[in-house]
Amino acid sequence: MAKGDRRLETGFLFTDHYQLSMAQLYFREGLADKRVAFDYFFRAYPDYGHHQAGYCVFAGLEWLIDWMAEARCGTAEIERLRNQRGSSGQPVFEDSFLEWLEAEGNFDPMTLRSVAEGRLVHPHVPLSTVEGPLALAQILETPLLNQLNYQTLIATKASRIAESARGGTVLEFGMRRGPHLGVNAGARAALIGGAEYTSNVAASARLGLPSKGTHGHSMVQVYMALGGGELEAFRAYASAYPDDCTLLVDTIDTLDSGIPNAITVFGELRAAGHEPRGVRLDSGDLAYLSIQAAKRLDQAGFGDVAIVLSNNLDELAIWQILAQIDDEAQRYGVEAAKLARRLVYGVGTRLITSHGHGALDGVFKLVAVDQAGEMIPSLKLSDNPEKIPIPGAKSVWRIYDRRGYATADVVASVGERPGSAERLELHHPYRAEMARVLSNHEVQSTERLLGSVLAGGARADSVPTIDELRRRRAADLERLDPGVRRLVNPHTYHVSLTSGVKAIQQRLVDSARDGRLSG
Amino acid sequence: MAKGDRRLETGFLFTDHYQLSMAQLYFREGLADKRVAFDYFFRAYPDYGHHQAGYCVFAGLEWLIDWMAEARCGTAEIERLRNQRGSSGQPVFEDSFLEWLEAEGNFDPMTLRSVAEGRLVHPHVPLSTVEGPLALAQILETPLLNQLNYQTLIATKASRIAESARGGTVLEFGMRRGPHLGVNAGARAALIGGAEYTSNVAASARLGLPSKGTHGHSMVQVYMALGGGELEAFRAYASAYPDDCTLLVDTIDTLDSGIPNAITVFGELRAAGHEPRGVRLDSGDLAYLSIQAAKRLDQAGFGDVAIVLSNNLDELAIWQILAQIDDEAQRYGVEAAKLARRLVYGVGTRLITSHGHGALDGVFKLVAVDQAGEMIPSLKLSDNPEKIPIPGAKSVWRIYDRRGYATADVVASVGERPGSAERLELHHPYRAEMARVLSNHEVQSTERLLGSVLAGGARADSVPTIDELRRRRAADLERLDPGVRRLVNPHTYHVSLTSGVKAIQQRLVDSARDGRLSG
Repeated sequence: MAKGDRRLETGFLFTDHYQLSMAQLYFREGLADKRVAFDYFFRAYPDYGHHQAGYCVFAGLEWLIDWMAEARCGTAEIERLRNQRGSSGQPVFEDSFLEWLEAEGNFDPMTLRSVAEGRLVHPHVPLSTVEGPLALAQILETPLLNQLNYQTLIATKASRIAESARGGTVLEFGMRRGPHLGVNAGARAALIGGAEYTSNVAASARLGLPSKGTHGHSMVQVYMALGGGELEAFRAYASAYPDDCTLLVDTIDTLDSGIPNAITVFGELRAAGHEPRGVRLDSGDLAYLSIQAAKRLDQAGFGDVAIVLSNNLDELAIWQILAQIDDEAQRYGVEAAKLARRLVYGVGTRLITSHGHGALDGVFKLVAVDQAGEMIPSLKLSDNPEKIPIPGAKSVWRIYDRRGYATADVVASVGERPGSAERLELHHPYRAEMARVLSNHEVQSTERLLGSVLAGGARADSVPTIDELRRRRAADLERLDPGVRRLVNPHTYHVSLTSGVKAIQQRLVDSARDGRLSG
Repeated sequence: MAKGDRRLETGFLFTDHYQLSMAQLYFREGLADKRVAFDYFFRAYPDYGHHQAGYCVFAGLEWLIDWMAEARCGTAEIERLRNQRGSSGQPVFEDSFLEWLEAEGNFDPMTLRSVAEGRLVHPHVPLSTVEGPLALAQILETPLLNQLNYQTLIATKASRIAESARGGTVLEFGMRRGPHLGVNAGARAALIGGAEYTSNVAASARLGLPSKGTHGHSMVQVYMALGGGELEAFRAYASAYPDDCTLLVDTIDTLDSGIPNAITVFGELRAAGHEPRGVRLDSGDLAYLSIQAAKRLDQAGFGDVAIVLSNNLDELAIWQILAQIDDEAQRYGVEAAKLARRLVYGVGTRLITSHGHGALDGVFKLVAVDQAGEMIPSLKLSDNPEKIPIPGAKSVWRIYDRRGYATADVVASVGERPGSAERLELHHPYRAEMARVLSNHEVQSTERLLGSVLAGGARADSVPTIDELRRRRAADLERLDPGVRRLVNPHTYHVSLTSGVKAIQQRLVDSARDGRLSG
């Protein structure tokens, strides 16, 4: 296929077939421009099997906004659609619809309100809400879900890994086993979620950040094949990167060969006026080997060089390594806390694929339809109460308790301001019997979470840097109860509806059920 | 960041940082153009937890070849690399290296031999082998692994899903929860592995295939919000797509509302001279509901319309649904085999993320280095025998037994032709004690698996269509023992080394161990 067609892969047609089918139907029925509102939210935290997330890190929003600004249904897209044939051999898309699409096929008319990227978020809460013409909102569903679900999934995993690393540096190394071009979005999400750098040169280039890495086994192997050895390979590397020299020490044998050779080369570097940076361990018992490596490096006067660990790491593996170091380091004369501080974690496959839970279940649901200029709440019934969305236009408030910890995310009507009254009645999002009351004096402050992002094709605020997104996450983590942050079996964070929103939902459920019974 | 930089995301810089660091080191040391060989292989089939793969479907090769042909280190790439700074503030990449990279930074000099895409493949067997200048082979490692690992993973999952569907049509629906742009490669791999179509419009456009889909719940909901109902929504859809009318019947209630309304509209369609295509069930007990839907459709005279199932499907879910239909359909007067034939499976998240096993462990290992014009076998030692690669240039043979079933993949030296002698001694790839002998009379035929694909920047054969790739997979499946195809706890397929290759490996291991002891 011609190279020119490659842009079709990432532009306006990056959507599901049925979105275009429905868009054409709406066009035929005169509904294409009908104003509607859709909410994006997820229903459950990732559950990795033996451990579970108690929060998610919201990510993907800026790349979604970029995509919405750039995606246009141009002539190449129209041409492709024109050539699609149905079962009867007739074109799937009619000329009149294609003309409309060529003129109107962009997302400039959409209004987007959203929780800020990088914030910690919870199930059932609308994280982004889109208002605009029905046909375009429908086409937007797939790319929006595709961007937000995956990046939120990976940022969440990265945050867990960073938490387990107790402040140690995390590097994202997952490109080689990750999902093709998805690794770029994954690297970005990992950086938002807690990774310091990524090895991915392409993603770093887009983000304007440096990429990082050490060297591979193959480098040592090349020297061996040519009659040299690990020491020659290390010397060559140190000579090329005297101020960034991190040596991979497990090609032959970590303690018998790699570490002694690294110490030799580090000594030569220092004699030449350069400070070595670190060693990397990529196999074996990483806890035991890092204690032994630390001991030998300490004895040789390299107490400050980093010890980079890699090989199938994730939050549990890191937690276990640090626990073992806590238990065992002293026996070998190594101070556990000092060793923990010099550890760096190269986390690959298990981060970029969110090991144990490979997809976030985020959905995009119709919540309101314009009728005579008014947005009327709408909802989809389900036999499963958990799957009934929260209808209508809403605001979202985070409530902080007197300790300064976030205690609940509250979904309210647009006009409501929870926490302003004496007592606040909070309802479970789908369990009718569960309600609680929060008194005014239990509340230190409230914060509005959904803000305007896009209106009339223009951004309402400035584009944040990756560092700003990281600071948002860090600030939210500090205000989250440690029980909710726990890696295994975390406390459940409260997500609630106000009485006002609950009443709208109940009224719609009742009337839909009546309609069903009588229909 | 400027739009122009977006191409950096997918081109020559789509690699790991350390590949470029090593490339520069090789350049400084005069080794950049040293001829080397790397093998791509994986070590273990995907293990999904309660079920395991007994084979993989090799995929990703054609997109890798396309990428290799297009990737060029141009001025934008050079500019980006020039701006990278190390810890000391000095540039990471020197001008002389960047000049070399600008002149030589492409993959035209690479020779690629490979197993054909679409073939069934097994662990430890070299699937692709690359020969060329060391620095370029090193830079190629990451994009090669990235393309082949993910597509092979997904094609394998798709093949299992297609097998569990017993010939029923499988549609790929995973775009919304898949890994950002990775879903395009995932859709392609799914199509190779057994999906008939994908809902992904972008991926279909690149592949020149039609995309497919039905409609969403939101369409019915829009009509309800506007005072109409499911019947009006169905009528509108049927009117827009009279010859491709598949109706989603679970927005309100599958059996009480969706199916009766669909039957009404199907009747109207037929009266107007069109045949309806199907209904889709997206929630509830899909086995029970498909039996009930079939019964009602049969009674109404629509015994031929498809019943499309979706909602968290994978190979086990489909297997279970069909088993339940086998058990229960007759009780409701529905013929199980006939129902099974009309089922279509829309498989989303669990296919595009390879649910249960999110990454293939494929690696790219240096196996030979040129010395004075001769490619000398090389290997990396490991304390884990399973991780010691098979050194040197090799050929791979598939041996078929007298039933016509593939019985072993044999890794041989380039000159060897296993099966030509009276008896063939076969060695386990890494367990020294395991060997067996195959007599000539047990062998019906042998087939050479590794063929030339790229030489001197040119393709050795023509580009296969997706259909050709599918036929390769289907033909291989027919020649695979049913025990190996089993979804759960499959038989282990034999992968073996010839005595010749085993001897080379052992000699290198011994000499490396000697070197380690004396070094």
